[in-house]
Amino acid sequence: MELSAHFFLELAVILVACRVLTWLGKRALQPPVVCEMVAGVLLGPSLLGLLFPEFHAMIFPKATMPLIFAVSQVGLTLYMFVVGLEFRLDLLSKGWRGSAAVSIAGIAAPLALGALLGSRLMADPAYFGAGVKSWQAMIFTGAAMSITAFPMLARIIMERGLAGTRIGTLSLGAGAFDDAAAWTLLAIILAAFESNPLIAVLAVAGGAAYLLLIAFVVKPVAKSLVARHPQASLSPAGLRAVLIVLMIAAWYTDYIRLHAVFGAFLLGIVMPKGTFVDNLRDRIEPLTSGLLVPLFFAFSGLNTRLDLMAGQGLWMVALSILLIATLGKGVACGVAARLGGYPAAESVAVGTLMNARGLMELILLNIGLERGLITPTLFTMMVLMAVVTTLAASPVFELVRPYLATDEEAKRPSPAKAR
Amino acid sequence: MELSAHFFLELAVILVACRVLTWLGKRALQPPVVCEMVAGVLLGPSLLGLLFPEFHAMIFPKATMPLIFAVSQVGLTLYMFVVGLEFRLDLLSKGWRGSAAVSIAGIAAPLALGALLGSRLMADPAYFGAGVKSWQAMIFTGAAMSITAFPMLARIIMERGLAGTRIGTLSLGAGAFDDAAAWTLLAIILAAFESNPLIAVLAVAGGAAYLLLIAFVVKPVAKSLVARHPQASLSPAGLRAVLIVLMIAAWYTDYIRLHAVFGAFLLGIVMPKGTFVDNLRDRIEPLTSGLLVPLFFAFSGLNTRLDLMAGQGLWMVALSILLIATLGKGVACGVAARLGGYPAAESVAVGTLMNARGLMELILLNIGLERGLITPTLFTMMVLMAVVTTLAASPVFELVRPYLATDEEAKRPSPAKAR
Repeated sequence: MELSAHFFLELAVILVACRVLTWLGKRALQPPVVCEMVAGVLLGPSLLGLLFPEFHAMIFPKATMPLIFAVSQVGLTLYMFVVGLEFRLDLLSKGWRGSAAVSIAGIAAPLALGALLGSRLMADPAYFGAGVKSWQAMIFTGAAMSITAFPMLARIIMERGLAGTRIGTLSLGAGAFDDAAAWTLLAIILAAFESNPLIAVLAVAGGAAYLLLIAFVVKPVAKSLVARHPQASLSPAGLRAVLIVLMIAAWYTDYIRLHAVFGAFLLGIVMPKGTFVDNLRDRIEPLTSGLLVPLFFAFSGLNTRLDLMAGQGLWMVALSILLIATLGKGVACGVAARLGGYPAAESVAVGTLMNARGLMELILLNIGLERGLITPTLFTMMVLMAVVTTLAASPVFELVRPYLATDEEAKRPSPAKAR
Repeated sequence: MELSAHFFLELAVILVACRVLTWLGKRALQPPVVCEMVAGVLLGPSLLGLLFPEFHAMIFPKATMPLIFAVSQVGLTLYMFVVGLEFRLDLLSKGWRGSAAVSIAGIAAPLALGALLGSRLMADPAYFGAGVKSWQAMIFTGAAMSITAFPMLARIIMERGLAGTRIGTLSLGAGAFDDAAAWTLLAIILAAFESNPLIAVLAVAGGAAYLLLIAFVVKPVAKSLVARHPQASLSPAGLRAVLIVLMIAAWYTDYIRLHAVFGAFLLGIVMPKGTFVDNLRDRIEPLTSGLLVPLFFAFSGLNTRLDLMAGQGLWMVALSILLIATLGKGVACGVAARLGGYPAAESVAVGTLMNARGLMELILLNIGLERGLITPTLFTMMVLMAVVTTLAASPVFELVRPYLATDEEAKRPSPAKAR
């Protein structure tokens, strides 16, 4: 009983912190998602726990961590489902030609540099969990470098009315391709990391089975069910049915040792577009973003321990990770765009947007931490990298924005969300 | 981590059970809310745990109970806030005379009969814990008899589209008053049982302070804030602000030993009606009813042990409790409504609705069991009473429904959900 009363207090503190940081961040041209990331870190042992250890221990006692984690996972699952709902495969294929160079640069360069980084970091046991093999460490850091904050990228592009422009299509296409590649790599490492080869087989075979099931059963069934009442508003029973499938998908992808976010995202993608998807999003998104997702930021922040970053050496490593990440992703994508014939300003904008890691990176890092792939030290360094690359995106984008091509599409009023 | 994956499975099982029972219950005129309550009981040790103990232990391990409880409390709080949003004080004050009579009958009669019952049951040590004084037993059974399934009452009223009608407002107003009185009594007994009078003082003074704060600070502030943009759609920042206040209110009312549902309900009541309230409801209600509230039903069912009811003597006592409960609450409220000038059909409807105990009763009983006030045997009898009075509500209500007054307000299209 006490736990439940306390949970309300934790929720209130987390939401207040997110609100204050969002309010402050607005003045620094930062979108809410970035501010909430930072709020989570500040609520953790890195600031609140450092300045007011007793207050911090009182608000966030260890006993409530499993609760925060479990609820944040439900929130994350719902969120990734909504991201899947909004995902537009058509944009991806439409921008394919222009995106190819940027896509390849955006996965090849960070993978190569990330792998190099991983192999160097393996020399010190402070960064990877016991039993992690060299190639797993290399692929994990490579994947971590390759991640783009795809939902955030999409939001920024929509909010700025760039959805149909050359730069918007280019970034969305390349971002989607690179994220899909990075997540696939992560799934492979997670499967391979299991000491029991049967579990790896379960992950790979189970993942393949899930893909087939989604593509050849769930998608057509959902389509035919929805086609019966194409314009009908989603009933509570309909919503309940979707939530049941979503919870089963989340449990299943967790059970086969992938992760609930994969199941949720893929399920979201195959939901029939139109009124149905709009209704689902309208019913699920507000409470998910408003109440549950901040718990995930807070959980990540509670695991981010800047106090572990003792000594100049560790800060140098963190700085190297930041530089390698920016070089491998942002600079590589920008250069690829420039070489592909895009104007300088557009190339900078594309590189900056691709470089932002955002929430996606936090998800990947948390999975790595909970599975014992990486240590809290490397986790903290990577979180710092994610926060800085994401913080940089919006101001840099605003700097080059006056020089971006303003074609007809760019002027179109956008269906922007504030978030 | 395992806990979180398992939580998805529990959610899926609970949602499926609710869906199946709702589908079956529809044929017995039972609204979803009752079906979901029964689904919870069937998922507990009373059926699933009895027939398939190993499967039951696998799906609902003890370790996940605090998680289910905490999340279900968040769901219940959000739900009660939505109920508050729908609540119309203007209709309550219009029907104040009738509501007052029903309120007083609904607390005085069950208290008197319950106290009588308590003093009789004290003769047998099988019902109350060691060290329980006679007057404590009497007040506890009295309070238990006085409880109305307030959230359930509200849900039935909303589902039937009666949220804004005279009968809906009468029942909601009287139910709220009686429940508040019963909970205050519970706080007093708990304080006396713990020999800590400070808890009672905290509950009474803290509750009064909360009422004043809501009425003279929160209400005018919310009104003036919303008045600036009366027709504007609620922004994510606006929703976030409301959720912050809601979480603080829930924590506070839990902290002063009342219950989060009262804080949430009262806060919902004072939200400025119009676009603002409509937007809040649309954003909060779907995911709350679709995903979170079923957890509350499941939690209550998991604590209900009908397997304890062995022997004819015990069943006779259980039957007496059921009769006394119905006489003291349902019949008394119906008579009070009739004497207050309501037509016979409406009086029967009000009595029936007030008689349903539902999950509020289970919360009170669980507290009594936890603190050692009552034994598992009396707990189970009271649960039976709660289930039967709740199951009876809807069919009896349907019987008199054709005879209900169809005045202007009753005919008005309601904002009810199809659910």
